[in-house]
Amino acid sequence: MRTTVGWQLEESSSTLRRTPLERRDLRPDDLAVRVDHCGVCHSDLHAVSAGGGRGPLVPGHEFTGVVTSTGSAVTRFAVGDPVAVGNIVDACGQCAMCLAGQENFCRAFPTLTYGGTDRHDGTPTLGGFSREYVVRDQFAHPVPEGLDPAATAPLLCAGVTVWEPLHALGAGPGSRVAVAGLGGLGHLAVKMAVALGAETSVISRSADKADDARRLGAHGFVVSGDPEQMAGARDRFDIVIDTISVPHDLGPYLRLVAMDGTLSHLGHLGPVTVETLDLLMGRKKLSSAGSGGRPATAAMLDFCARHGIAADIEVLPSARVNEALDRLRRNDVRYRFVLDLSDLDSATG
Amino acid sequence: MRTTVGWQLEESSSTLRRTPLERRDLRPDDLAVRVDHCGVCHSDLHAVSAGGGRGPLVPGHEFTGVVTSTGSAVTRFAVGDPVAVGNIVDACGQCAMCLAGQENFCRAFPTLTYGGTDRHDGTPTLGGFSREYVVRDQFAHPVPEGLDPAATAPLLCAGVTVWEPLHALGAGPGSRVAVAGLGGLGHLAVKMAVALGAETSVISRSADKADDARRLGAHGFVVSGDPEQMAGARDRFDIVIDTISVPHDLGPYLRLVAMDGTLSHLGHLGPVTVETLDLLMGRKKLSSAGSGGRPATAAMLDFCARHGIAADIEVLPSARVNEALDRLRRNDVRYRFVLDLSDLDSATG
Repeated sequence: MRTTVGWQLEESSSTLRRTPLERRDLRPDDLAVRVDHCGVCHSDLHAVSAGGGRGPLVPGHEFTGVVTSTGSAVTRFAVGDPVAVGNIVDACGQCAMCLAGQENFCRAFPTLTYGGTDRHDGTPTLGGFSREYVVRDQFAHPVPEGLDPAATAPLLCAGVTVWEPLHALGAGPGSRVAVAGLGGLGHLAVKMAVALGAETSVISRSADKADDARRLGAHGFVVSGDPEQMAGARDRFDIVIDTISVPHDLGPYLRLVAMDGTLSHLGHLGPVTVETLDLLMGRKKLSSAGSGGRPATAAMLDFCARHGIAADIEVLPSARVNEALDRLRRNDVRYRFVLDLSDLDSATG
Repeated sequence: MRTTVGWQLEESSSTLRRTPLERRDLRPDDLAVRVDHCGVCHSDLHAVSAGGGRGPLVPGHEFTGVVTSTGSAVTRFAVGDPVAVGNIVDACGQCAMCLAGQENFCRAFPTLTYGGTDRHDGTPTLGGFSREYVVRDQFAHPVPEGLDPAATAPLLCAGVTVWEPLHALGAGPGSRVAVAGLGGLGHLAVKMAVALGAETSVISRSADKADDARRLGAHGFVVSGDPEQMAGARDRFDIVIDTISVPHDLGPYLRLVAMDGTLSHLGHLGPVTVETLDLLMGRKKLSSAGSGGRPATAAMLDFCARHGIAADIEVLPSARVNEALDRLRRNDVRYRFVLDLSDLDSATG
């Protein structure tokens, strides 16, 4: 076993505490990664709120770092390479979804970066809020040259989560895209939709973020709290990417979708309810997205490197992880917290 | 006013009773139609069950008949022409949806064939379970040569309702279509999907309808009550047309949809709930459909005439309308009741 240190949920609390952790010895196809930066995702917040009932919880599933050791069969990476890891670290590799490069839809369910179970030794996976991670080489990605590693970390979950629907739904020149919710996911969706050439609008509760939306490249802005503006935007967008992270009525957003267009809902899991008439009146579609497969992740990273896209981040030393979670809960971040895990090298954290 | 006779819901009951009705005098763009055949749709059942709270209820919104008189400005039709009318008899004509030929999505809401309100005189519309209907010429369609008028009537609602999603979702050679529920809508969906060249399967509660499905041209059959068959069909279909007419869990049907495919839900109105993960795991889409615009209706009728497609019907004299509704409630029809309204010409009906 290898030993490291990370931020683990205390029993019967919602506080993460600095804790010694074990990582497996490298298998032939494993890399050991020194985690330098890990984004803080809404899922982390949900996992912490839900408690670590099913075993130890170390959140974190979008991180970048440097390879420190490689298994005997690894050829894609060498010690010293900058790498990035997202929310999936393994999959069956044999089902139709895996064979199609959509390991995120693996029929046998993908192994999640934390809160999952290793397919070989049955141990619980512990996330990237730690100084070292051991990962199968196929599920690590080179960090493209020219991208800041800290700002790249959120691309591995937030980035690919918005990339997949934009790409699958054909966002590009001539299409009209709206992004509901300007947060960690939303601000990346805006950057990508703009870079893809789509006419891009932001839908936000108030006008507070209008300047920011413009700075991110958005061409339009709709205040969801203003019935007149919402009525004026009815049936306007071919694609609405709904990144709102709490359960909410999808009706108002479906009504903004143009005929034969799609509302892609990514903000949260659980059941969603829609009125048939909201879908029917315009032959609209509802879809949902979350993370991506290996080829899409690689394509997204390449696209971002070519267009200079990374997350707008606020970097905090990892010792302030609980503060980051608190502020994320209040949506007090523009637009993604990234933990700097180098502070874990010191004896006290 | 013109007078006719039809089947109107009795107050405080769920029985239709032979009743004298008034029809408006012809406006310049109106046709008077002698209604010969009118299909019995699940919506009629819903309307009757809901009672006629908002005014007199005469159901029936898929009928064929013969033009008996034309308004002064009518040029498309002449007395003696066989015509067909569906569930919409007017729309604003000016909104983006109407201009796109999707009067069924009219922003000002289309005028329904019954249970609606006439846009000009404000009277309630009374449906096709009657011997005469007065309709704006634009919302009547010529009955194509070679199609049986009785079996054509159900095409005007059931037919276009399944045609629209099949067409919009690209059913054709190379695509795999499943039709859930083999009833009035479903059997037409199977015929059309087969004629469009799609590999077509039926999903039904039991194996009872397997022979019928084959006779209709289906290539496959999945028993929804058999977990093994449902598991074997997972992720198999690009398009699943769900025609089940009662509220039900969409999850099992979403799981049959292939990656990037669509579940089109047409059986009933009201809220629908889906689990995000059922959409997410395969980037699947949920849509809903119902009726169609004038161009789609014309295209559907043309397609059906070329492929010899009409409904499988059981014709009953209109005096047996209450029996038809009772049997439809128990799904005791293969596959559509059509009322023969000529019995209304006799003094007793």
